[in-house]
Amino acid sequence: MSDTNSSSPLRIAIAGLGTVGAGVIRLLGTNRDLIAARAGREIEVVAVSARDRTLDRGVDISGYAWEDDMTALAEREDVDVLVELVGGSDGPALAASRSALKAGKGLVTANKAMIAHHGLDLAELAETANVPLKFEAAVAGGIPVVKGLREGTSANALTNVYGILNGTCNYILSEMEETGADFAETLAEAQKLGYAEADPTFDIEGVDAAHKLAILAAIGFGARVDFAAVHTTGIVQVRAADIAQADALGFVIRLIAQADVEGDGDNARLLQRVRPCLVTKEHPLAPVDGPTNAVVAEGNFSGRLLFQGAGAGDGPTASAVVADLIDICRSEIGAPFSMPVGQLAALPPAEPGHRMERTYIRFTVNDRPGVLAEITAAMRDADVSIESLIQQGRANYGEEVLVAMVTHEGPERCVRKALDLLEGSDSLTGDPLVMPILPN
Amino acid sequence: MSDTNSSSPLRIAIAGLGTVGAGVIRLLGTNRDLIAARAGREIEVVAVSARDRTLDRGVDISGYAWEDDMTALAEREDVDVLVELVGGSDGPALAASRSALKAGKGLVTANKAMIAHHGLDLAELAETANVPLKFEAAVAGGIPVVKGLREGTSANALTNVYGILNGTCNYILSEMEETGADFAETLAEAQKLGYAEADPTFDIEGVDAAHKLAILAAIGFGARVDFAAVHTTGIVQVRAADIAQADALGFVIRLIAQADVEGDGDNARLLQRVRPCLVTKEHPLAPVDGPTNAVVAEGNFSGRLLFQGAGAGDGPTASAVVADLIDICRSEIGAPFSMPVGQLAALPPAEPGHRMERTYIRFTVNDRPGVLAEITAAMRDADVSIESLIQQGRANYGEEVLVAMVTHEGPERCVRKALDLLEGSDSLTGDPLVMPILPN
Repeated sequence: MSDTNSSSPLRIAIAGLGTVGAGVIRLLGTNRDLIAARAGREIEVVAVSARDRTLDRGVDISGYAWEDDMTALAEREDVDVLVELVGGSDGPALAASRSALKAGKGLVTANKAMIAHHGLDLAELAETANVPLKFEAAVAGGIPVVKGLREGTSANALTNVYGILNGTCNYILSEMEETGADFAETLAEAQKLGYAEADPTFDIEGVDAAHKLAILAAIGFGARVDFAAVHTTGIVQVRAADIAQADALGFVIRLIAQADVEGDGDNARLLQRVRPCLVTKEHPLAPVDGPTNAVVAEGNFSGRLLFQGAGAGDGPTASAVVADLIDICRSEIGAPFSMPVGQLAALPPAEPGHRMERTYIRFTVNDRPGVLAEITAAMRDADVSIESLIQQGRANYGEEVLVAMVTHEGPERCVRKALDLLEGSDSLTGDPLVMPILPN
Repeated sequence: MSDTNSSSPLRIAIAGLGTVGAGVIRLLGTNRDLIAARAGREIEVVAVSARDRTLDRGVDISGYAWEDDMTALAEREDVDVLVELVGGSDGPALAASRSALKAGKGLVTANKAMIAHHGLDLAELAETANVPLKFEAAVAGGIPVVKGLREGTSANALTNVYGILNGTCNYILSEMEETGADFAETLAEAQKLGYAEADPTFDIEGVDAAHKLAILAAIGFGARVDFAAVHTTGIVQVRAADIAQADALGFVIRLIAQADVEGDGDNARLLQRVRPCLVTKEHPLAPVDGPTNAVVAEGNFSGRLLFQGAGAGDGPTASAVVADLIDICRSEIGAPFSMPVGQLAALPPAEPGHRMERTYIRFTVNDRPGVLAEITAAMRDADVSIESLIQQGRANYGEEVLVAMVTHEGPERCVRKALDLLEGSDSLTGDPLVMPILPN
């Protein structure tokens, strides 16, 4: 990359002209003067690439060179930085990204899947070429939380990083809360309104949140990205009845992505989980509703910090992409994961069985004598202490009945053991839903 | 400053060893390895200065050189960066800070008063000497909101920056909310608990929040710092009855520091205000209680971002100071106000009379016939439309009575005119309290 520090324009190429790509072009136009003043130089789009050259995207791309091939785009001599907005962990996005870095170009990307899977490789390429790699937009849209962890909390040993990282799930859960509707219905509505994709699997299964969590955990804990180790449970099993039950107990349900490190030195272990949790209404994450994202970082000196804002959308995502470009213009560039890749620790995954937590467990059961006795006996045999238990009366004879309980604080393994004891019982009509209660 | 970019230690001198100074020393010790890994080099305290050399601060300072004179400290040849934690807008803090920059040292400070009054001069000195000036800890303690605005939202034209910037006031207001106690009593309790200083004037009068707001406004709006133009109203006049009244209407009361720009080009005007406001319970600032701070920044692409955390305290403040030092180690240094001082606009203060807002107005009146007629006639004559009005029955004959009202949305100048009409009326037993309702 030439002249990063000079006052000549920073020349960028944009790969991918979906809503975010168009948003970046619109943003660079609308806020042109202000960006130049803050960046100390102009940011100039020189070339673009996308699947379809002729599509009307609401922005004029006629002034930019067009490349059919993204790798050719990435390697253009007149380009300082590739802005990769194609998406997908592999394929053309990865190929173009690698090519850009190898050709000595900087890389700015919004691609969480690619960073979760290949972020370390890309960071090493960037180190070798001594060029910037930045991915603020990959996590939590417009919220500067990559920066928040990389720089804002850099003086701290973090004890805990967690938050709401998927806007689709948060929209669905808070809508279910609001309307009393069930999951499937609310998902369909969210799809109609554009809050959920046609194929929402990655969102509702928690994979998208897991991508983002793996990135935040690496930065926050100085660990090698380990997406494969994220325990991921989505929100598909959450029913209107669970939300009503949680509400009656003083909780809301949120899909929480959470990472922490236990032990230190050679015994350090990283725990990364995405799962629906019960959150007390007093917790700062409880009022976070709709497609909003929020991240809590707890540092040993900073205490609890909260970053909140729009987790997706073309405007917020473009805001994060262009903030990265401005950082590059300002030569405020450093190790993307907060320290050089070689210094990141390869932390084995923690085994959470001994972790103490309160848990909400909901069973769907056949309404017949002895079912409650069977469940409570399993709890007793597994040393799970029940704080409260509600059996919901059935509407019609023969229908399934919900049994919900909240446990006292106890080791997670006990709950798992209880569920193992009940595994295969023909009293249960489906898999039990287990949701921990997020400590306040 | 020599060798900022090398792997030799960054050598710092600390001026001021109060709780924050001791906190910085403790933090640099506790998180030493982690900081070195993230910063790419060690941060080494070489010298300190404070009023009393012998005081026990709970940290060992015997390994550091001692200077009685802070300016001598600032100019030591073996120092790269002065960390100024003395406080006060002028005096030794300013003298030492100027000396450090003139001597080619970097400056990191937590001193909001100094930055609010002399930040531009200091930034110019830093530009001339080509050394870093950083002051994350000057605003909102451990929350990286200077960074959030300087870098996180850098791609955006901000439409609005506002928040809760004074922990003492927020503690008092949320305690009053919780306990029903009145201001004086709650202040005394806060002083006992260490949430308010022995002389709380700067906090409860809103001056501290105004310092911080002037800094954020400069960064957020690319404007020259203009502390003198901040309209500042404290919380001294807020009574338990106001909080109860607000609560009944669905609001909490928070001291809100708020800045925005109206108009553009030569017509751009900056409005900066600190004043107690009614905040609907659904607003993200409503649940912010105790000594917590929170800042909202609304960008034209990012949408609304919220930064929240501990606004004061030795740990959080030290966290921000050391984050600045790590940025310096990483050579991630740029214009402290987001653009060079010469490019900051000198924005004249906006005159808010035409601004539309809903307002809570509370009168204390003599309980006698005709008082309500007098007040409502003044409202009518000033074109203020009343949405609701409550007269609180007196406890005993002859005691003052509260009359509280909420207006429909209307120009601020009308409310001011109504109060002018009532000025000097012997029906009123004190100055009316006017609190705007923060839009959601």
